[in-house]
Amino acid sequence: MLEIVKRDGLARLCKFETRSGVLRTPALLPVVNPKILLVTPKELHNEFGFGAIITNSYIIKNDTNLKNRAQTEGLHKMLDFPGIIMTDSGTFQSHMYGEVKATNDEMIEFQKSIGTDIGTVLDIFTEPYWTRGEVAESISETLERTQHACDIKGDMMINGVVQGSIYSDLREDCARKMATMNVDVHPIGGTVPLMEQYRYAELVDIIIASKKGLAAGRPVHLFGAGHPMLLAFATLLGCDLFDSASYAKFARDDRFMFTDGTFRLSDMQFLDCNCPACRGNTLESIKRMDKKSRENVIARHNLYQITSELALIRRCIEEERLWELAEIRCRAHPSLLDGLRRLKFYRDYLECKEPISRDRAVFYTGGESRARPTFYRYTKRLLERYVPSFQRAAVFTGNKKPYSKHYTSDFNRVRTAGYTPIIVSPFGPVPAELDEIYPIAQSLFPDIVDQETNEDVKQMMDSFFERMKFEEVVDENEIKAGNVEYDANQIRVRATARYQFGIEATNALFRGKIDLVLSRKTGKVRNVISDGEHILSMRANDGFYTLRPEGAERIIELVPYPKFRVVVVDDAVPYILQGRNAFCQFVADMDPDIRPMEEVIVVDKDDNFVATGRAILTWDEIRSFRRGVAVKIRSGGSEV
Amino acid sequence: MLEIVKRDGLARLCKFETRSGVLRTPALLPVVNPKILLVTPKELHNEFGFGAIITNSYIIKNDTNLKNRAQTEGLHKMLDFPGIIMTDSGTFQSHMYGEVKATNDEMIEFQKSIGTDIGTVLDIFTEPYWTRGEVAESISETLERTQHACDIKGDMMINGVVQGSIYSDLREDCARKMATMNVDVHPIGGTVPLMEQYRYAELVDIIIASKKGLAAGRPVHLFGAGHPMLLAFATLLGCDLFDSASYAKFARDDRFMFTDGTFRLSDMQFLDCNCPACRGNTLESIKRMDKKSRENVIARHNLYQITSELALIRRCIEEERLWELAEIRCRAHPSLLDGLRRLKFYRDYLECKEPISRDRAVFYTGGESRARPTFYRYTKRLLERYVPSFQRAAVFTGNKKPYSKHYTSDFNRVRTAGYTPIIVSPFGPVPAELDEIYPIAQSLFPDIVDQETNEDVKQMMDSFFERMKFEEVVDENEIKAGNVEYDANQIRVRATARYQFGIEATNALFRGKIDLVLSRKTGKVRNVISDGEHILSMRANDGFYTLRPEGAERIIELVPYPKFRVVVVDDAVPYILQGRNAFCQFVADMDPDIRPMEEVIVVDKDDNFVATGRAILTWDEIRSFRRGVAVKIRSGGSEV
Repeated sequence: MLEIVKRDGLARLCKFETRSGVLRTPALLPVVNPKILLVTPKELHNEFGFGAIITNSYIIKNDTNLKNRAQTEGLHKMLDFPGIIMTDSGTFQSHMYGEVKATNDEMIEFQKSIGTDIGTVLDIFTEPYWTRGEVAESISETLERTQHACDIKGDMMINGVVQGSIYSDLREDCARKMATMNVDVHPIGGTVPLMEQYRYAELVDIIIASKKGLAAGRPVHLFGAGHPMLLAFATLLGCDLFDSASYAKFARDDRFMFTDGTFRLSDMQFLDCNCPACRGNTLESIKRMDKKSRENVIARHNLYQITSELALIRRCIEEERLWELAEIRCRAHPSLLDGLRRLKFYRDYLECKEPISRDRAVFYTGGESRARPTFYRYTKRLLERYVPSFQRAAVFTGNKKPYSKHYTSDFNRVRTAGYTPIIVSPFGPVPAELDEIYPIAQSLFPDIVDQETNEDVKQMMDSFFERMKFEEVVDENEIKAGNVEYDANQIRVRATARYQFGIEATNALFRGKIDLVLSRKTGKVRNVISDGEHILSMRANDGFYTLRPEGAERIIELVPYPKFRVVVVDDAVPYILQGRNAFCQFVADMDPDIRPMEEVIVVDKDDNFVATGRAILTWDEIRSFRRGVAVKIRSGGSEV
Repeated sequence: MLEIVKRDGLARLCKFETRSGVLRTPALLPVVNPKILLVTPKELHNEFGFGAIITNSYIIKNDTNLKNRAQTEGLHKMLDFPGIIMTDSGTFQSHMYGEVKATNDEMIEFQKSIGTDIGTVLDIFTEPYWTRGEVAESISETLERTQHACDIKGDMMINGVVQGSIYSDLREDCARKMATMNVDVHPIGGTVPLMEQYRYAELVDIIIASKKGLAAGRPVHLFGAGHPMLLAFATLLGCDLFDSASYAKFARDDRFMFTDGTFRLSDMQFLDCNCPACRGNTLESIKRMDKKSRENVIARHNLYQITSELALIRRCIEEERLWELAEIRCRAHPSLLDGLRRLKFYRDYLECKEPISRDRAVFYTGGESRARPTFYRYTKRLLERYVPSFQRAAVFTGNKKPYSKHYTSDFNRVRTAGYTPIIVSPFGPVPAELDEIYPIAQSLFPDIVDQETNEDVKQMMDSFFERMKFEEVVDENEIKAGNVEYDANQIRVRATARYQFGIEATNALFRGKIDLVLSRKTGKVRNVISDGEHILSMRANDGFYTLRPEGAERIIELVPYPKFRVVVVDDAVPYILQGRNAFCQFVADMDPDIRPMEEVIVVDKDDNFVATGRAILTWDEIRSFRRGVAVKIRSGGSEV
């Protein structure tokens, strides 16, 4: 059972409940070789804080002694591990050695018999060099085996592995079918050769294709991924679980893992590590150790690199800056950067999970940052939802933010002459009245602009001017003088509403006389009063509205169902009226276009107003989760 | 006394000798407030490994008790610090509070009286908002005071601070005058307000301007720079010393320093640090501490971040990958990225210090990587030194490296038809015969190319084709068939010689019959024999030549002095003939165009051949250093 605690990008911090305890994801499961306990499972748990490990049931089954012990003592006792144990089934051995001597049935039953918490189907490893036909055929077999495993799994959880080699459509199709089965965890399999060959762009294709098909309510495990260099990026793409044999394998070869790569002890010129394993050591002292001690120190170093990177990843999700971390990590190797650059092909999918705003500003880390879905959404909404305030446009190129604060008198001059001030920004065109919304005001760019950004911005400006059909577009210094009267705040409140709710809902919201309540301290709009009713409040931090009950009622009245609605079951209504949050299991239907953190209207099954709030999850997620907050309720119409 | 041990970019690993011991640079000097010893100087030395600290002589002088103790016990005993102590003079106080109540004379004498190892002139802090006139005037005063300080410094070392506000020419001029004075360390001053305001592009201007003027043989101290986020970049730009009061200041405000920024304890959602200070703590346990313990833990954390970043920087210099580290670190803040992007304005200066090759491949971290001087040098040398092997060109767009290995049959086809194969690469045009030289073969790029690179490459291709005056330029698939005979290795050996030594020297080297000795194992060229003399050997790792004595003699004969020459004094000749390296103090003159790691010819004062070798330092450096290896000698003509 999975519950989302926090999200950023496609990443999520979750609680994953198993019979051996709750695992906080993202999490990495160190691979434990039952024959060689380089670092003991107990140490992995107590010293390093790993809540779960993975070991290989096929190896145990083929060793008489281990098999007997596992079946009599149980796996947890045999390995002396107090947390969650996942087992692999021999599939990777089939990839390595061509075949395994066991059936799916035998492997599932064996895993049950030794008390595995999460067992794995004996699926078929789809190699990157296989033909499409071979892949399709083997997926059918994997799906059959998975269905059978679900039938006989008993109270063991089961890994239903997504296969499909490098064929995105086959991956997505396989994932979609896995999502309908009673599996508990979704590993993405067959990816190790791609990672070994640094084919990260294809790895991105595979992960996204799988994510599209899979059920949101189950953890996704990227099988075989355990390098600290990759973890932030894979988490950003929505992977929750990882495993690593490399901490030990690399240690055997005297290789240190870092977030910027793997380095041989013999090549390293200096030891720059403060981890508990390295502390007090020098390269020389490590070189002088006997093989076993050296292997142990390096394995521990590698594990500490993993735990501290995972902690940083969790922190970045909590602080909503995982995009920044992942983009920086991807620069450790040009092939990882290829993976990052591949994301621009998936902007539509990424935009669906992109929150409406964040507490933290967008930090640009390089040209690749402009592929973030927040840029794409802005352009899309602007083109679809913006209505010019004046029929002529005056173009500004200043870059001090927020623009309306730094260019107040210029904007006045231009508007008085009957022009809409449009600022050229790395987001493309920014009408002055939208300059305070996220991410326009909440973003930082270098002053020295790269050519790609310049070109893109030019194109965006062109599309915008074409679409908006301005009578005239001139530089701010070339305007003809005029004497138009206007109210900048009135322009802003409508433009913001259109950007946030669309044109139709804005027409429903704004009627009759519009009065604005300004903040005494900042002079900024706080409340929008229409025909005497307080319909909207403006948030200072992201420039967007919170919807008031009076506003919500107007939308329900004039905008057809299901726009902006979240329908809750009757039983939940009294609780929500008391201000309790709406939980996933009580949501019956929902506008599928709602994005995370978007303002929503909670209604009952007859479309009667119940409350306003902010969506935490999207409809495909809410349908898939059995617990967790779906909508944060704004009790009695007061502000969150 | 300074000695370079290793270099990369403008960065250098040095040994800096003082009367209180040798400091390994790059080094950071923690600022010790003599009134509040948050972390004791002894701990800074023994626990954290800081070899030097900085404290403020003006504060000591103004506190009767401290003043008396410092003058009677001496500063080292008073602070109980067994390493090197630098003192500041009150200049920063004048920036903070407008004036100081002391004269330069008093401050120098006082610093001497308390046993400071490195004292500081009471220079004038040039503020970023000052007019050019004000700045110029205050520089004159600073220079006068510095000259006076040099006159009276005794056996105390002295900091001669480069000032000049944001005026690059005034900075460079000030630096040039400082270089002529008898100062020991060159701080770059007046930079704190720029760092506080994130004006990193201007900081780059200032550092480069100062570096241009300063003497290479003295350490450069970037005053007030101590954030781990900035250290790699500032080191890359040639700063050797840093200081940090922020480790303590930030700790006082409950702020944690990391390489990706500074974070408030109250904003942090997770503690992701394995440093000895944080280990065993959680955010909650730190929040529960009393103010003093908390401040101590955070200050220690901040210091550990600095020490481990410095260790990583040293490691990256040793491993010749500081460009990669600095580029990644600069992505922590868009303003730092502005600093990085500023570098393309200084490519000529940077190219002078750029080594001919490295042991490690160029890793592309983003569009900014293409501003590295290694790209610039390639384009420059190609345009100036390349001579087409065939008068028509056939363009290839494949990207598997080394090209000549992957496209052997295609290159054959094209050459047989009488065309020069030219590959389109992120370096611009690469003639097939140059595909194994550094950095063409020794570089990794993403496959997905950004638009800026595309545009640049297109322009470079155009300039190249224009310059080379090919009769025809076509796609490799559009060539007319032909039946030309050629020897690919003969083409390669001449093209490589022209690229490495220029056209004139190549004409001197290649005469009569050219025989090539190939490696039996790889089939690659190993030795070039001209008229029966072994003139050149080709290195497998970077595709360049080592010069043999016979080759060197030909260059001496036909290429006018001082090209490729390093002149050593007569006394040194016998040692060099025995294969000993040429040290700075024995070099009398040198070709100023020689780059680090370039092949050179050591001659005596009459231009007689003595030895061949590789330059470690450039002429401006050799002139300025009194010790260290200038040229690594290849004894008796055998390979290094």
